[in-house]
Amino acid sequence: MSGYVRELALAARAAQATIAATDAATRRALLEGMAERLLDGQDAILAANGGDLERARLAGAGKATLDRLALSPERVRGMAEALREVAAQDDPLGEVTRRDVRPNGLVVERQRIPLGVVAMIYEARPNVTAEAAALCLKAGNAVLLRGGSEAAASNAAIAHCLHAGLRAAGLPEAAVSLVADTAREHVLELLQLSDLIDLAIPRGGESLIRFVAEHARVPVIKHYKGVCHLYVDRAADPDLALGLLIDGKTSRPGVCNALETLLVHRDIAAAFLPRALAALRASGVEVRGDSATRRFDPSLAEAGEDDYAAEFLDLVIAIRVVDSIDEAIAHIHRYTSDHTEVIATDDPAAAQAFVDALRSSAVMVNTSSRFNDGGQLGLGAEIGISTTRLHAYGPMGVEALTIERFVVRGQGQRRHPLPGGN
Amino acid sequence: MSGYVRELALAARAAQATIAATDAATRRALLEGMAERLLDGQDAILAANGGDLERARLAGAGKATLDRLALSPERVRGMAEALREVAAQDDPLGEVTRRDVRPNGLVVERQRIPLGVVAMIYEARPNVTAEAAALCLKAGNAVLLRGGSEAAASNAAIAHCLHAGLRAAGLPEAAVSLVADTAREHVLELLQLSDLIDLAIPRGGESLIRFVAEHARVPVIKHYKGVCHLYVDRAADPDLALGLLIDGKTSRPGVCNALETLLVHRDIAAAFLPRALAALRASGVEVRGDSATRRFDPSLAEAGEDDYAAEFLDLVIAIRVVDSIDEAIAHIHRYTSDHTEVIATDDPAAAQAFVDALRSSAVMVNTSSRFNDGGQLGLGAEIGISTTRLHAYGPMGVEALTIERFVVRGQGQRRHPLPGGN
Repeated sequence: MSGYVRELALAARAAQATIAATDAATRRALLEGMAERLLDGQDAILAANGGDLERARLAGAGKATLDRLALSPERVRGMAEALREVAAQDDPLGEVTRRDVRPNGLVVERQRIPLGVVAMIYEARPNVTAEAAALCLKAGNAVLLRGGSEAAASNAAIAHCLHAGLRAAGLPEAAVSLVADTAREHVLELLQLSDLIDLAIPRGGESLIRFVAEHARVPVIKHYKGVCHLYVDRAADPDLALGLLIDGKTSRPGVCNALETLLVHRDIAAAFLPRALAALRASGVEVRGDSATRRFDPSLAEAGEDDYAAEFLDLVIAIRVVDSIDEAIAHIHRYTSDHTEVIATDDPAAAQAFVDALRSSAVMVNTSSRFNDGGQLGLGAEIGISTTRLHAYGPMGVEALTIERFVVRGQGQRRHPLPGGN
Repeated sequence: MSGYVRELALAARAAQATIAATDAATRRALLEGMAERLLDGQDAILAANGGDLERARLAGAGKATLDRLALSPERVRGMAEALREVAAQDDPLGEVTRRDVRPNGLVVERQRIPLGVVAMIYEARPNVTAEAAALCLKAGNAVLLRGGSEAAASNAAIAHCLHAGLRAAGLPEAAVSLVADTAREHVLELLQLSDLIDLAIPRGGESLIRFVAEHARVPVIKHYKGVCHLYVDRAADPDLALGLLIDGKTSRPGVCNALETLLVHRDIAAAFLPRALAALRASGVEVRGDSATRRFDPSLAEAGEDDYAAEFLDLVIAIRVVDSIDEAIAHIHRYTSDHTEVIATDDPAAAQAFVDALRSSAVMVNTSSRFNDGGQLGLGAEIGISTTRLHAYGPMGVEALTIERFVVRGQGQRRHPLPGGN
């Protein structure tokens, strides 16, 4: 071990105590100041990003990677706007979430405090650098940021602006620490620091997340792939279902809340599937279907096991016709990644059965899977979407970066009387 | 891998779906029925326990181990009573904890669902078998119980009663699975089953917990040692402080919420310490002090670094005189195990400064550390006390065995308009 990451984590831990002791107004002003400095630093950020893009192109990066990596004046403004939105949220710290007076007079409160030091391990999305820092600071945490090497210059330029904001607020720069040396050994080192790091959040492809989960000695909140299902019930409104299908599959196919599988009740298949197949074709979506689906278009490829388990992240969809809602639920239980499932139905009993039978992080009734997103669901912003049923499940906002502790006030209460009376 | 534990976990997972689908009344009746069967089975349980005790004595087990292992008619009644108390609690499942209508009309709810399959890994405390099972079932989970080998016969007898309760309720016995073969390799196997087990909770000595933390691929909620501090402020009521000291140190020295270190403000040392030392001596407590403490009794042993870091679990205490509340806080920051810290003071500003500066799972003002306990703090019962700032922090009751997911209801809302209008 080089000790390089340990030094960063020690500094982050010291800085965290200072951040945790700030009041709500200070943290709000800090984030607003950081947003200003991102806008002031736009030219430097874009120049650094241009270098990253050039190197990525020379290294043969694909279109999706380049798209995630690329910044523009609009995207920098978007980052600044995200920081302002986080700044404007209710402050989560100190909030007394519950208060109970015990029969012996003890006043028992639950109160939100920061988690401590959060490590973000992510790929080539420079906007995560700013947004993760903002969410962590809002909740009184320090953050260690280890972004992908492709975005190293962009991340350094963004961190430079964030540090200027911290300095201007009289707060320690180490509250936002960039792991600038992106060698993988440093990730391994970071994942061992269970005495210094309270939580690691990996964001990126499945291989990155598996790597983190396998090597971590620190707690990890994972978000594996999103194999999201739309079930079109026999009682669905076909127009509504068609809207959810096209929105879920085509509005941004490369993200985790995009649809991957369509399940259609046999009773509505003849009314719905021909229109659905035509609309998917018109949107350039490749369809892989079971035999019942292929009866409506024999030219379709046949869907296999792998297709139902796949997160295509592309304009591809697997379709299956089911005999009942129970068969749809059984299919989802088998292939779900616990991310998002959608039912289209006008039958309240079917909707309730679907909600009750499934336990994914978000179950949607008559609305698009694409709404499983912190901003859309009212969290203001998100640091990730957890598919682990522990601590947080679904989109994680500022509140998911805190924990409730107990504060107990009494007047001398004891469990046992003193020896010899009293 | 033998596959033995994997088979148990697969069966537990299947059973969990059945438990999760039960209604509140069924789960309540289930736990009441289990309590009845424990009482009916008291003779068999005590006979099995007698065998365990005999084997432990022959193997040279110490007094503390034998005390934890020993059951009595009273302790069996206590187990049954604990099950009834858990049964009587509010049902945690299905509760909608938050509801928000978004500007686009989406109704976003957060709803409690079970975690899934919980693995308890514990030492020779047979009562944990019944209580952990009750808490897990109440929250709709299945549980895998791997108790210490010393308690194998007792645990089997208790599980026999729990299974009778499940059968009588028409529910699968596999919802409560005892890992009857207690070979350590099976613990290792269990800790790798990240596809089947949602949470592992180790309860026992530090070495057990470290073993679990080091080898787990499943999420773990840890509870390491409790190095609990009492700080007697300059503005403390000496009588009150003395009561907290004796209760915290002597009422049950072998438990995690017992006091290990006393910090005394210099201004109150002359008024408080001589009485404290006399009371500790009268209770048979061995004192290790710093030089300022030893001025009041030069016969005391000198406290070293190790003493301030120690969880004595015995009638031993370390004492230090501090110049200020800040010095007390700095001492606690250095040695805390994040379990429980207590201040005795009549000065509200000092109390607030203490609460704000520390972030242990419970911070107590003018009351005993011994109250950091699920039952005492109003949770009804506890499955453990978490010292990890993730998911749960402090005593964990039924609610800590659930997670909130998102349920979203709409009328066809999409993120993007359909191509070509609509």
